[in-house]
Amino acid sequence: MSFPRVGVIGAGQLARMMAVPANDLGIDFKVFAAIADDSAAQVSHFVLGDYTQIDSVLAFAKECDVITFEHELVPQSIIKAIEATGIKVFPRAESFVYSQNKLEMRAKISELNLPNPKWQKYDGEKLEIELPVIAKVPTGGYDGRGVFVINSETELADLYVKTGVLLLEEKLNFDYEISVMVARSPHNQAATWPATLTIQTDGICTSTVTPVPKISEELAAKVASAALEIASGISLVGVMAVEMFVLGSDFYINELALRPHNSGHWSIEGSETSQFEQHLRAILDLPLGSTKMREKFAVMGNVLGGAKSDMYRPYLHLMARTPALKFHQYGKAVRPGRKIGHVTLCGENLLQLQEEISHAVDYMNGVIDE
Amino acid sequence: MSFPRVGVIGAGQLARMMAVPANDLGIDFKVFAAIADDSAAQVSHFVLGDYTQIDSVLAFAKECDVITFEHELVPQSIIKAIEATGIKVFPRAESFVYSQNKLEMRAKISELNLPNPKWQKYDGEKLEIELPVIAKVPTGGYDGRGVFVINSETELADLYVKTGVLLLEEKLNFDYEISVMVARSPHNQAATWPATLTIQTDGICTSTVTPVPKISEELAAKVASAALEIASGISLVGVMAVEMFVLGSDFYINELALRPHNSGHWSIEGSETSQFEQHLRAILDLPLGSTKMREKFAVMGNVLGGAKSDMYRPYLHLMARTPALKFHQYGKAVRPGRKIGHVTLCGENLLQLQEEISHAVDYMNGVIDE
Repeated sequence: MSFPRVGVIGAGQLARMMAVPANDLGIDFKVFAAIADDSAAQVSHFVLGDYTQIDSVLAFAKECDVITFEHELVPQSIIKAIEATGIKVFPRAESFVYSQNKLEMRAKISELNLPNPKWQKYDGEKLEIELPVIAKVPTGGYDGRGVFVINSETELADLYVKTGVLLLEEKLNFDYEISVMVARSPHNQAATWPATLTIQTDGICTSTVTPVPKISEELAAKVASAALEIASGISLVGVMAVEMFVLGSDFYINELALRPHNSGHWSIEGSETSQFEQHLRAILDLPLGSTKMREKFAVMGNVLGGAKSDMYRPYLHLMARTPALKFHQYGKAVRPGRKIGHVTLCGENLLQLQEEISHAVDYMNGVIDE
Repeated sequence: MSFPRVGVIGAGQLARMMAVPANDLGIDFKVFAAIADDSAAQVSHFVLGDYTQIDSVLAFAKECDVITFEHELVPQSIIKAIEATGIKVFPRAESFVYSQNKLEMRAKISELNLPNPKWQKYDGEKLEIELPVIAKVPTGGYDGRGVFVINSETELADLYVKTGVLLLEEKLNFDYEISVMVARSPHNQAATWPATLTIQTDGICTSTVTPVPKISEELAAKVASAALEIASGISLVGVMAVEMFVLGSDFYINELALRPHNSGHWSIEGSETSQFEQHLRAILDLPLGSTKMREKFAVMGNVLGGAKSDMYRPYLHLMARTPALKFHQYGKAVRPGRKIGHVTLCGENLLQLQEEISHAVDYMNGVIDE
């Protein structure tokens, strides 16, 4: 037995951040990138290829001991083809489908008797839920893309003509949104981190607070338990974000992402084991790490591309102002609205942490200039 | 202004661990390695070359904005040649000499009126210090190499014939050894971390505890102040370890290392800013980060090569036993006594942390098998 090689299909920021614990643990780490300038390819060994081309994916997989993913776009046929060779792939195709297809996910949550919003599959026939509804393209959407608010049957019919089959969900007037990160290993060891408040703007997560402030112990236990039930119910191997809506003391499952997730970035500094290290431990069937928080609160802010194109110069002001602020650059060119990095701050005084994160993000993308 | 490129001469574990904050900060990072299998070259972009060959070092330096080092072996002539081109090199040759030459270091500490052990330069003539003495080859030694306990004038004369000029120091019966890590930027911003207890076995540091347990506030303030005075006195840019002997309420400077240092490894998990990130901030003249500890204690243990050659299999036991333990592998083949990695554990209960670290190290290198 010696250090295994992990291959990641996809070379964005999630693979980039996974490279750090891989190197620390001595795990041989390689990414399958589209171009050499991909976020993770800049800082890791990589192979260039197209993840929809079975031959090049298999050639890459054959050089690895375990294959994993950092996005939902790898076709089921490709995942199954790797599985057929006997090379380990985690999450498995049968689990990953719940990250890829929102209709499959809704059906599974119902089967597990966990709280879904009212939902239906819509194939141009009968609308069963009261308007307004949320219409989602079942596959391929993220960060608000492929999601529509529908106020009339005419709007729905028009959308259906363009998109085909839709998932329809009741429009919940939720109080806030949370995410529970959970990890599970092939031997059924599982662990959650404290639930994270995810603050969205225009369908994109802009900041997170961990743990969810003022969450009741009862609700915290309920959402952790739900995340563990889903992990077990879909035979998860790796980490998963379970996004939920909270309404009073009730919660509803929103989406599943079977990979490290934006809502778990805080764990790099904030937890004894980051989501990236935990994902590696899980897919390698190593014992999972402690998910204890290192400090009382962790606040994370996404840096979205804005008016400024130079992300280095802001360090001069921000590092002097907030000496504990941690920066994560993804090595991406600035484009409006694009996630190009994130910042994290841990400590005791939540209001102050949020103020500093908000200032840092606004200063980096040019919303404020002092 | 855009992201600068930092070039590191040397590609051992210190450069490897420096790659992490470089990538997080978006800094273009390149190492000058002897072979492609060097610790840092395994996980970073690299250029191959010989650090004693001026042409290849200059060709590397010209592609970088700032050059730094991860070991003391780069000749002064090479450092000065880079400086002559106008490319920034930190620490500067005039500072780095105190890391390279122990006689220069002793003279400087005396000049700064900081506490030295009794010492003398020995060139075969008069012994001025009472026997026994510690004899040190002024340049090139580390981890106990080039250091000799001398009990008689005959022994000294014999050694001198082999080594040439020696630094002689009184053999102090110190209570314990500590290290103070300090960082200083070109604009004279400076910061220390809490002092670290360094536990040595056969002249090699085997574990550290931060902060030094039961150190008096007065002594903690005095040693921090001494480290800052030295940093300023030698115009340090970067991080430096100031190793000291403690005897009662007194301290004596032992050695200086102008680079990230084994005694600062705990800061990766234990401090809000690691020594590696701080070094980058300092040499790039960015504001320094917070050196606050994230938890009450941080204990680090060096993994030295022993009977076991497989460093992966121990994870199965150790990760299950101690879920908060953090592993750092250097990607080096196991050789007896060679530093091949380290482990860190942070928390409140010092005795328990030390027990777990000691167990982990012994289990990894094969001293115990359960």
